[in-house]
Amino acid sequence: MRIWHPCTQMKDHETYPPVFMERGQGIYLFDRQGKAYIDAISSWWVNLFGHANPRIARAVTDQLSRLEHVIFAGCTHAPAEELAERLLAVALPGLTKIFFADNGSCAVEAALKMSHAFWRNHGRPEKCRFLYLANGYHGETAGALGVCGDRLYAAPFVPLFVPQIEVAGPDCQRCPHGQARETCDAACFASMQAAIDTHKDVLAGVIVEPLVQCAGNFRMYPPVYLAKLRRATLEAGIHCIADEIAVGFGRTGTMFACEQAGVSPDFMCLSKGITSGTLPLSCVLTTDAVFDAFYHDYADDKAFLHSHSYTGNPLACAAAVETLRIFEDDDVINANRPKIAHLQAAVRERFAGYKHVADIRSTGWITAVELYADPERGTPFDWRDRTGFRIFQEAVKRGAWLRNLGDTLYFMPPYVITTDEIDKLTDIALEATKAVLG
Amino acid sequence: MRIWHPCTQMKDHETYPPVFMERGQGIYLFDRQGKAYIDAISSWWVNLFGHANPRIARAVTDQLSRLEHVIFAGCTHAPAEELAERLLAVALPGLTKIFFADNGSCAVEAALKMSHAFWRNHGRPEKCRFLYLANGYHGETAGALGVCGDRLYAAPFVPLFVPQIEVAGPDCQRCPHGQARETCDAACFASMQAAIDTHKDVLAGVIVEPLVQCAGNFRMYPPVYLAKLRRATLEAGIHCIADEIAVGFGRTGTMFACEQAGVSPDFMCLSKGITSGTLPLSCVLTTDAVFDAFYHDYADDKAFLHSHSYTGNPLACAAAVETLRIFEDDDVINANRPKIAHLQAAVRERFAGYKHVADIRSTGWITAVELYADPERGTPFDWRDRTGFRIFQEAVKRGAWLRNLGDTLYFMPPYVITTDEIDKLTDIALEATKAVLG
Repeated sequence: MRIWHPCTQMKDHETYPPVFMERGQGIYLFDRQGKAYIDAISSWWVNLFGHANPRIARAVTDQLSRLEHVIFAGCTHAPAEELAERLLAVALPGLTKIFFADNGSCAVEAALKMSHAFWRNHGRPEKCRFLYLANGYHGETAGALGVCGDRLYAAPFVPLFVPQIEVAGPDCQRCPHGQARETCDAACFASMQAAIDTHKDVLAGVIVEPLVQCAGNFRMYPPVYLAKLRRATLEAGIHCIADEIAVGFGRTGTMFACEQAGVSPDFMCLSKGITSGTLPLSCVLTTDAVFDAFYHDYADDKAFLHSHSYTGNPLACAAAVETLRIFEDDDVINANRPKIAHLQAAVRERFAGYKHVADIRSTGWITAVELYADPERGTPFDWRDRTGFRIFQEAVKRGAWLRNLGDTLYFMPPYVITTDEIDKLTDIALEATKAVLG
Repeated sequence: MRIWHPCTQMKDHETYPPVFMERGQGIYLFDRQGKAYIDAISSWWVNLFGHANPRIARAVTDQLSRLEHVIFAGCTHAPAEELAERLLAVALPGLTKIFFADNGSCAVEAALKMSHAFWRNHGRPEKCRFLYLANGYHGETAGALGVCGDRLYAAPFVPLFVPQIEVAGPDCQRCPHGQARETCDAACFASMQAAIDTHKDVLAGVIVEPLVQCAGNFRMYPPVYLAKLRRATLEAGIHCIADEIAVGFGRTGTMFACEQAGVSPDFMCLSKGITSGTLPLSCVLTTDAVFDAFYHDYADDKAFLHSHSYTGNPLACAAAVETLRIFEDDDVINANRPKIAHLQAAVRERFAGYKHVADIRSTGWITAVELYADPERGTPFDWRDRTGFRIFQEAVKRGAWLRNLGDTLYFMPPYVITTDEIDKLTDIALEATKAVLG
């Protein structure tokens, strides 16, 4: 065993060796024995238009023959320019500039650094703190861990990062105000307002995952919370950073989740679906106001010094350009609507009423089924029993790569899935669940 | 202007618009007007075998038709397996495991996190501090900034990271012991030894860039320093982390810089040249001892939870596999030797004795020429005069992308450069210098 896999207890592979994937096609992955698996989670939420998508493959191949890469300081190139034009055209109003990085963590790092340096360049260096929502997740590097409420990922590394300020976030499943997510007015925003009021003199900004805290067990909250957040950040004169790495590019039903609240943030972090699951790429979109704070004579020493060797990689940009062309050519956001409705209904039809289901929730494509030992008494399974993981293994046997998150099953398939395939996938999910839980 | 370029004062582009690169071929970049530029710095030190290299393009294209990407938790695939096998076969003894990430910063973050978590898993959570060399550079994310002595990149972001412990490093150009780099015994190691002795109970490890601090103005130091460091870290029972992101894959004349000291570190971070400048990819190589500290029953909660969506991307791995095949097929390390000698001599022939040359230094391919206003008196240029930047612009006019680092010119071309092209490049460098400085 030479490879140390990410986010994996490697000893598990004594019992469950890694599946050796040989090829992909559409929603299917095929192992070396030719067995097919439905990629139910879009390979960690990245794939939009299927594996080995011919349009995207052609775009990357074309670019390979011209210019695979070039330093992105002092130079530019067609794929980056076209990507900037297309992405900013579909982005929320006010987002006019794009800064590239390689993955989600680095986009978050760049946004946090930009936000603080904005204040520093404006003579307010004390504005260096960030608020984040409990249960949030923003990446794995030290700056990103500082805004992660998800202790599982951060706890072993606490001495290595500066912890930012955690704020109790929305928890619609156990709403302390007794409201329903669909109809509430986000009374729970009061804790965020209080934190802003308390800390605003030292705050650079607030970072949130709009609408769905994906890694945080798919906790979902209503757009009205975002609308209140945007208003409060504007009033307090601090930045609003929207981490749409997981939820952007149509996952929540709209191109970007913030659209559902009708708000534009000061920073938007994007990655994952940006290349339709082909190549690592991320970016931060921001405003003229932020850009202008760094736009000075060289000797003023106010430039944003942040770079990665492969920033703006032409191959990744070419994949992203083709992704946005597909969105346009195939009217993807509208075409997705009936499929989203079918997925939500298919999951509900199969799981509603099943004895261990504590909650079923959806926002766009993202549909999660939370399993408890005793839903009525609110008793979860003992985490050491690895219930979700065992269901995952049963699903894999049955031809679906339905990776669990703890004891929550979730569905986040590529957009090219058909209604028949949705039915098949959700059938497998229920069978696998019953194979473990009876 | 939509794109915010990395490490750039964007206002400079009012005078010098970004050059729009259309294609690349071998050592040349071509702009939209068809003008050719020698890529003298291998596009930020990443390109080894030329732009649009047909072997690498073919390898990536083949992989595109099979499997562009798949989640790397629970799965594996041929390009990652072959890369692991080939890379560990040429790596230093004792490095037996590979963990993937997307760029150099994230490899450094992963190594720092692994190092600390190793001690934590061994019941020593207090071992959470790192030593690093003054003038070092290890990336742009908050954990990496904590081990950067290079204030320029880190200063604006100080409140966002945990500063680790800086140690005075070798400074061969102004050796306080009056020794020469070629013959010394690294008396300057005393300060590192003292720091290890003082802090060892709380130290996780020491991170260094072996032989050349590239972003630190190409400060170079002898292998004996590394040999002493490895001995001292073993004696103190702390980790040695070698950041070979810039110097690995043949840049210093050997496959890895550590080879020249005959030492194996506990962690080696690699990126840049790993895909021969094609796609973002990085990795951490480490030992059985480190791996075993995380290898436990699931319920022990000792796994290394770190992941990026595109970890182990098959396309990037395919480019890296082909890169290592080229190293083997073309006996690249040996074939490079006469070219390296030619480059070093060509720079020296042209620049030695020139009135503003304060120092010429080389380690393998990496050759730097430091320019001062008055070398005899040791007076640098006023940084606001941007002498190096103006020489860069003159070189660009003459067809060489010879990006400066402050007032230091440096040469780090792709390995496919010919001796004639080396002569042409170094001629342009001297002409550009004289155009600015007379």
